Amino acid sequence: MQPDLLERQRQPLLIVISGPSGVGKDSVLQRMKERGLPFHFVVTATTRPKRPGEVDGVDYFFVTHDQFAEMIEKGELLEYAIVYNDYKGIPKQQVRDALASGKDVVMRIDVQGAETIRDLCPDALLIFLSTRTEEELVERLKARKTESREGLKLRIATARQELKRVDMFDYYVVNADLRLDDTVDTILAIIHAEHHRTRPRVVTL
Amino acid sequence: MQPDLLERQRQPLLIVISGPSGVGKDSVLQRMKERGLPFHFVVTATTRPKRPGEVDGVDYFFVTHDQFAEMIEKGELLEYAIVYNDYKGIPKQQVRDALASGKDVVMRIDVQGAETIRDLCPDALLIFLSTRTEEELVERLKARKTESREGLKLRIATARQELKRVDMFDYYVVNADLRLDDTVDTILAIIHAEHHRTRPRVVTL
Repeated sequence: MQPDLLERQRQPLLIVISGPSGVGKDSVLQRMKERGLPFHFVVTATTRPKRPGEVDGVDYFFVTHDQFAEMIEKGELLEYAIVYNDYKGIPKQQVRDALASGKDVVMRIDVQGAETIRDLCPDALLIFLSTRTEEELVERLKARKTESREGLKLRIATARQELKRVDMFDYYVVNADLRLDDTVDTILAIIHAEHHRTRPRVVTL
Repeated sequence: MQPDLLERQRQPLLIVISGPSGVGKDSVLQRMKERGLPFHFVVTATTRPKRPGEVDGVDYFFVTHDQFAEMIEKGELLEYAIVYNDYKGIPKQQVRDALASGKDVVMRIDVQGAETIRDLCPDALLIFLSTRTEEELVERLKARKTESREGLKLRIATARQELKRVDMFDYYVVNADLRLDDTVDTILAIIHAEHHRTRPRVVTL
């Protein structure tokens, strides 16, 4: 019985890092990658323009609308959504291959997408990143300055709604300003702990 | 809503470290204490004789059978049990005081006692320490040499039964030989993670 349990505890996890726009999902993922952790970080496909410093195939697969439409048609996406007029999607085969290799898979995804993943895979591990207060989130979105006035308004309204979805998630982690390593440490503790549950999560996709 | 959730996440946990005899519960607790962690470590009352190196009031409250009987009569124990002809019990007020001070409370308790605690407090956090295999546990019990032949036989039989109770627990941690710090690190990760659940445990006693 024990060897079985140990075996099950070694099964890879599907880890979803989510939270409202502006909360710092990209920065947290970036720091996790910098720390050389033994996870597979899912590369999302997106139609949105590349931001300064981003690398195609590393941060995202930057694709055209036509290419994205083709991926949808061929059923190549685990999940996709329109996020602020741009499409984002999770390549299905990439996730399956990574899980098959035995690695924990980490994906960054918006709140709506995280709920879709949970429907597809009820045993996915869902982590909700947040700011300490709603005001802090609004300030961060304003400071980002990559938005038009209209775009910003939309993001703030959406973020406020998304903050209310926290109960859909398993864990809630505050990503306080400039303390990315604390946030990453907490995420690592969660992953470490989850590999020691007596009722391990069973990931099937 | 968020400040409420943050507030609830700060609520102290009641952490039960259990597992069969011989698995190293005392050594793990000892290492946790040495590392100066900010927990309240419950001092158990026991009628068993002091082992070399143990200190009264630190490792256990060593009491006579008469004193123990009085504690039972006065309802001063949260839980008590006869463990290999000796009584062990958890002083109730000590646990309540520690929780009221806001500290996470850590108690070491046998498997049967852990199940009693779970009945009293369904939101207690139950961690099951184990060896990698049943054979390893038997070897450790034999190596201990504090037992009579009869006592050893009884412990082995009990330990085998107790290994089957792992599903009653929340987490399962292998305490591999001489790797106490790894075991403690895993326990700390579990506690850290548990303070970030979106559905925090509510400890009432």
